Amino acid sequence: MPRDYRRDFKFKQTGGSGKSFFHSVVLMSVRIGILTAGGDCPGLNAVIRAVVRRALVEDAQVFGVRNGWRGLIEDDIVPLTRSSVSGILPRGGTILGTSRTNPFDEASHLERIRLNWEKHELGALIVVGGDGTLRTARDMWREHKYPIVGVPKTIDNDVGGTDFTFGFDTAVSVVTDAIDRLHSTAESHHRVMVVEVMGRHTGWIAAYGGIAGGADVVLVPEHPFRLSRVCDFLRHRADQGNAFSIIVVAENARPVPEENFLSEENSREIYRQGRLGGIGMLVAREIERISGIETRFTQLGYVQRGGSPTAFDRVLATRFGIKAYDMVAASEWGHMAALHGRRVVSFPLDEAVREIKKLSEEIYHVAELFFG
Amino acid sequence: MPRDYRRDFKFKQTGGSGKSFFHSVVLMSVRIGILTAGGDCPGLNAVIRAVVRRALVEDAQVFGVRNGWRGLIEDDIVPLTRSSVSGILPRGGTILGTSRTNPFDEASHLERIRLNWEKHELGALIVVGGDGTLRTARDMWREHKYPIVGVPKTIDNDVGGTDFTFGFDTAVSVVTDAIDRLHSTAESHHRVMVVEVMGRHTGWIAAYGGIAGGADVVLVPEHPFRLSRVCDFLRHRADQGNAFSIIVVAENARPVPEENFLSEENSREIYRQGRLGGIGMLVAREIERISGIETRFTQLGYVQRGGSPTAFDRVLATRFGIKAYDMVAASEWGHMAALHGRRVVSFPLDEAVREIKKLSEEIYHVAELFFG
Amino acid sequence: MPRDYRRDFKFKQTGGSGKSFFHSVVLMSVRIGILTAGGDCPGLNAVIRAVVRRALVEDAQVFGVRNGWRGLIEDDIVPLTRSSVSGILPRGGTILGTSRTNPFDEASHLERIRLNWEKHELGALIVVGGDGTLRTARDMWREHKYPIVGVPKTIDNDVGGTDFTFGFDTAVSVVTDAIDRLHSTAESHHRVMVVEVMGRHTGWIAAYGGIAGGADVVLVPEHPFRLSRVCDFLRHRADQGNAFSIIVVAENARPVPEENFLSEENSREIYRQGRLGGIGMLVAREIERISGIETRFTQLGYVQRGGSPTAFDRVLATRFGIKAYDMVAASEWGHMAALHGRRVVSFPLDEAVREIKKLSEEIYHVAELFFG
Amino acid sequence: MPRDYRRDFKFKQTGGSGKSFFHSVVLMSVRIGILTAGGDCPGLNAVIRAVVRRALVEDAQVFGVRNGWRGLIEDDIVPLTRSSVSGILPRGGTILGTSRTNPFDEASHLERIRLNWEKHELGALIVVGGDGTLRTARDMWREHKYPIVGVPKTIDNDVGGTDFTFGFDTAVSVVTDAIDRLHSTAESHHRVMVVEVMGRHTGWIAAYGGIAGGADVVLVPEHPFRLSRVCDFLRHRADQGNAFSIIVVAENARPVPEENFLSEENSREIYRQGRLGGIGMLVAREIERISGIETRFTQLGYVQRGGSPTAFDRVLATRFGIKAYDMVAASEWGHMAALHGRRVVSFPLDEAVREIKKLSEEIYHVAELFFG
Repeated sequence: MPRDYRRDFKFKQTGGSGKSFFHSVVLMSVRIGILTAGGDCPGLNAVIRAVVRRALVEDAQVFGVRNGWRGLIEDDIVPLTRSSVSGILPRGGTILGTSRTNPFDEASHLERIRLNWEKHELGALIVVGGDGTLRTARDMWREHKYPIVGVPKTIDNDVGGTDFTFGFDTAVSVVTDAIDRLHSTAESHHRVMVVEVMGRHTGWIAAYGGIAGGADVVLVPEHPFRLSRVCDFLRHRADQGNAFSIIVVAENARPVPEENFLSEENSREIYRQGRLGGIGMLVAREIERISGIETRFTQLGYVQRGGSPTAFDRVLATRFGIKAYDMVAASEWGHMAALHGRRVVSFPLDEAVREIKKLSEEIYHVAELFFG
Repeated sequence: MPRDYRRDFKFKQTGGSGKSFFHSVVLMSVRIGILTAGGDCPGLNAVIRAVVRRALVEDAQVFGVRNGWRGLIEDDIVPLTRSSVSGILPRGGTILGTSRTNPFDEASHLERIRLNWEKHELGALIVVGGDGTLRTARDMWREHKYPIVGVPKTIDNDVGGTDFTFGFDTAVSVVTDAIDRLHSTAESHHRVMVVEVMGRHTGWIAAYGGIAGGADVVLVPEHPFRLSRVCDFLRHRADQGNAFSIIVVAENARPVPEENFLSEENSREIYRQGRLGGIGMLVAREIERISGIETRFTQLGYVQRGGSPTAFDRVLATRFGIKAYDMVAASEWGHMAALHGRRVVSFPLDEAVREIKKLSEEIYHVAELFFG
Repeated sequence: MPRDYRRDFKFKQTGGSGKSFFHSVVLMSVRIGILTAGGDCPGLNAVIRAVVRRALVEDAQVFGVRNGWRGLIEDDIVPLTRSSVSGILPRGGTILGTSRTNPFDEASHLERIRLNWEKHELGALIVVGGDGTLRTARDMWREHKYPIVGVPKTIDNDVGGTDFTFGFDTAVSVVTDAIDRLHSTAESHHRVMVVEVMGRHTGWIAAYGGIAGGADVVLVPEHPFRLSRVCDFLRHRADQGNAFSIIVVAENARPVPEENFLSEENSREIYRQGRLGGIGMLVAREIERISGIETRFTQLGYVQRGGSPTAFDRVLATRFGIKAYDMVAASEWGHMAALHGRRVVSFPLDEAVREIKKLSEEIYHVAELFFG
Repeated sequence: MPRDYRRDFKFKQTGGSGKSFFHSVVLMSVRIGILTAGGDCPGLNAVIRAVVRRALVEDAQVFGVRNGWRGLIEDDIVPLTRSSVSGILPRGGTILGTSRTNPFDEASHLERIRLNWEKHELGALIVVGGDGTLRTARDMWREHKYPIVGVPKTIDNDVGGTDFTFGFDTAVSVVTDAIDRLHSTAESHHRVMVVEVMGRHTGWIAAYGGIAGGADVVLVPEHPFRLSRVCDFLRHRADQGNAFSIIVVAENARPVPEENFLSEENSREIYRQGRLGGIGMLVAREIERISGIETRFTQLGYVQRGGSPTAFDRVLATRFGIKAYDMVAASEWGHMAALHGRRVVSFPLDEAVREIKKLSEEIYHVAELFFG
């Protein structure tokens, strides 16, 4: 039975710094690790900076674990100072690096994590990651007794238990800018533009980007679509003199097989291509073939994952970072920072990772409203 | 005693269009007016478009009242069609125009509004405005019995009863972009930059913009500041080798009078100048005088009020517009659309206008955290 | 033999308006047509506005010919006033619409153009278009004796006789922004990103965008590339610890067939797919297959053609519009506006359309410098 | 008499790398210094990166002199490697820092420069700076016999001998974005907006920004203006129903004294305030006082100097950096890189610094065209 590292968590209670608005326990002797894992997401650096700056107020020490869990396995751990985090707020990516390495992939991983944890005398770990990473964090806390708090992170906005994740607003902004540019040609050409956007399991980016950009059709994984309906709608618009239509397709949106409209062969190709990327290109070709309207394709790809976070995402990420520190100070292990309305709260990882958060029905219907 | 126009509100219930997610009553015979009043705010056009597009689904008719209440007084009312609102989603300003004319300014105003209301056979009015306009809307509904619903609008984010107003995120983004640019010179010069931002009564824009931009000091109206403390902090930073500091000042932030640090005369000048704009410039001069550090000034002014709304603001404004229509369909007079967490709800105007929404303590403390 | 409309060109010389810097002949009685033809290009509206505003100074009248040459064939011609062009400067697209209709496609076209020209008593025509349109304009002037001046327009920057065309800087900015976002993930992942950009016959956009974005490899139509060399370079970078590479591919860049590296079948597919769009996706797959490095794909597509023009493009388009008016005033038929260094000059269409302007060798070598 | 360091310049001619497009002499044994001096300017990092990357091709060594000439005086000189310049292309500021220290301020400066030059065995120096810095560079080369080449740098675009300097396009873009935002409120309010922009001695930024943003009035230092004329024009616009006017004022534009329109006292205050910044605010107050039209003020300040350079500026800066290296390889001392049309050439410093480059008459008249 593993040693319960959570019981090792000690702090030296002091008079505090007078910055008493936040959690008042002062962590002078605690060494806090932080790691970022999974795909890129604008705002990661803002979280890291906020944790370090918050800790500096209390003279606590923060250690950056490089490349996600791999840094704990391979002993790649560096102290983070004020100057480590200077100037990183507006930058995309993560100064700590990331990886998809999983502590449970190999038995030796856990053993090495244990050794490095003790070597560095870590007192707590802040794990910043998406659905999968948070599930791993939950298991490391629950089964292996590590004192861990989480910070949810994904451009897809599909982590449960929080209204929004940082990175999402940035991805939506990139999509919206692209649609704006496509729209500006609207008065000149009779043409359909298909824009493929990210969203592994959900249509959040597609729906928000589609609404913000004024797309005519939004296709999301939550609602398989009929190509025949899309083509009918486009022809209807063309008949009414709308020379231009914009379709936003989430990368995992899938058409319903239909006789005459989507051959068995094309359908299979769409599924196969979808895995390789480019579902939008296939949809564009089918629409052009079926409707006879000239159709063009844009795939934004990783452009949605990178670059400077929006103001919204920077503020959210900063608040999450400060909350994560305060959760450590309050020993709220197995919880993650979450946005509930205007407040940032502590939310149980167990509940958060139970299932991914699907696109809200209201947002879907707002997007649908403009589709016919 | 005025006739109760709210009792005139009738609708022809039909089978509906099958777009049954939203409020299902169909308003085939209702003529809905909409007006925008007060200062500019990115997202106004998105609201107008959403109301019109939502109404089109039910074959209801929307009429644009031009230049705020003035259009009702001067009979400047135009039908809004699909083509009226085509392409306006990404545009700043308002296609309806706005004014600060108030129905209660002159007795004749109310009489003329009554005549024009009847002439155009309006069945409901959607009023999009800030604190003052919503108060007027409440009075027109409560005292003069008009069937009115509201939509809150202000870049200042100070309307009560809603988590956020559209326009705010855009203003914050403009401030953040400006601070980012100022920061990029950080490694080269020893200098203080003062950025004056909007926010009539509250520090929302200053605090969010300051946090997102990584400002070192944020000064807000809710918390009068000591120039001596600011100067001490700047000298402390300079001593530590931080060659560069950024201060965000809300337009109505005010210094506490201090002996030696802010003369009676300078203090009076700051108050006087503040009314004319330019409090930031005065603060910049005082800081340079007191601390001896070279100080520069930026006043973004109306740049914060204009331009294309951010994706966040466009989605919020679109949802508010759809909600306003549904509130009309549900006869929820005297209410306004409001954001509560992830949901858009109906909220009583009486409560919303009771007092302005001050900067949240949590956000203030997050901003303060980076100040010393 | 056609009537020489150029001899009809008359003007009423007046005292002028004192705006004597530009060409001083005043065209009070002249009716000037303007049309935009070919693909979209940011800056078209800026040209139209400049022509109209310049003409207003002299009380000359400008008529907008809608949808390119088609408007002359179908008598779709509207007067352009100050209010027609108000607010259009920052907008993408063209308020006149465009088409690819060619006067020489059908014999009846020329006859109808002649009738409409006389009906509207046009005295001159300003044709804004790319290589093909300018060739048509040249033929209409030389063979059919119309008093025509041209304004070069293409995002591809491949029109001869001018240093730059407006639209190009905007397209390059879009590409650069996308690469910047991809770069921000550089510190975290070992991955190749392929960005496909526009440029029908030339590598101008690819090279400028690649240099500005700091791409590692730039592939252009002017220089067929070896996939083996690209893969070697990527592996070399990977061996040196450069975890991330960005490749910019112009839409018509083509690989040289190589044994083992690009099979006959794949090569054929690349050529075939290239016609349908998506050469970049094929290149990405081949690179992943050959080098074994994870590779991702972005296709910006028409996003490069739309949206608000950059400041550079707006100034250039405005200067071209003013120059076009002055060329009409000076009867410089068969010429187009052109940028030579800092000056806007009049340049013969005959020379301009002789051949497309290939990517300059200096720029290509600057781009190559960072490749290997 | 000073030793002629230019005669020390030696290189080891080798077979070269085959990158033979650029100057072919290979500088394997040469140590090249580079410094940036004067005010901030977007694109400085792009120059530094280009010099280092170009030198790497030939195995030459580049040394960064920190904080302008001060680094040579205080022996603050660091080797620049590939990793030193990784990721800096899109960043504002300069990784080398800058200062306004002048070698000729103190006699000891020159002596210490001599010692450090010899200590580091420098073979050449690339000086990146504006008008003043280039004059200093010229003197160090001509009088003190240092092998120096220059790269012109200023957002003001006022260095002679080159069509454009990098940084200018970025500053113009910032101004244009701000004006665009102000314009979006145009349809709603009757108001004058005054935007004060940079430009110490010239109106380049004001004129380009004004043209690109569609400003109604542009006031530049080259042409003192009459406030009465401006007010007449604004009232004329208001009478015609143009509810909104935008005025761009360069920081050193100055009004002509006029009886009744600009009192002696106000005129003195304008001159006095101008020195402290804020000429635009004074002009705004006078316009409001004289014309009675509500007037608002925006001062962009250092926002124009910072931030990521535009694509145009990055390409120009990169080409200048490569050219500077090639000028070293060709021993073209006392010259600077310059843009002449499409070509980057070598231009004598003597001629370049003879006088600042005033706003071109053509550009001024384009801006004036829209003023009345």
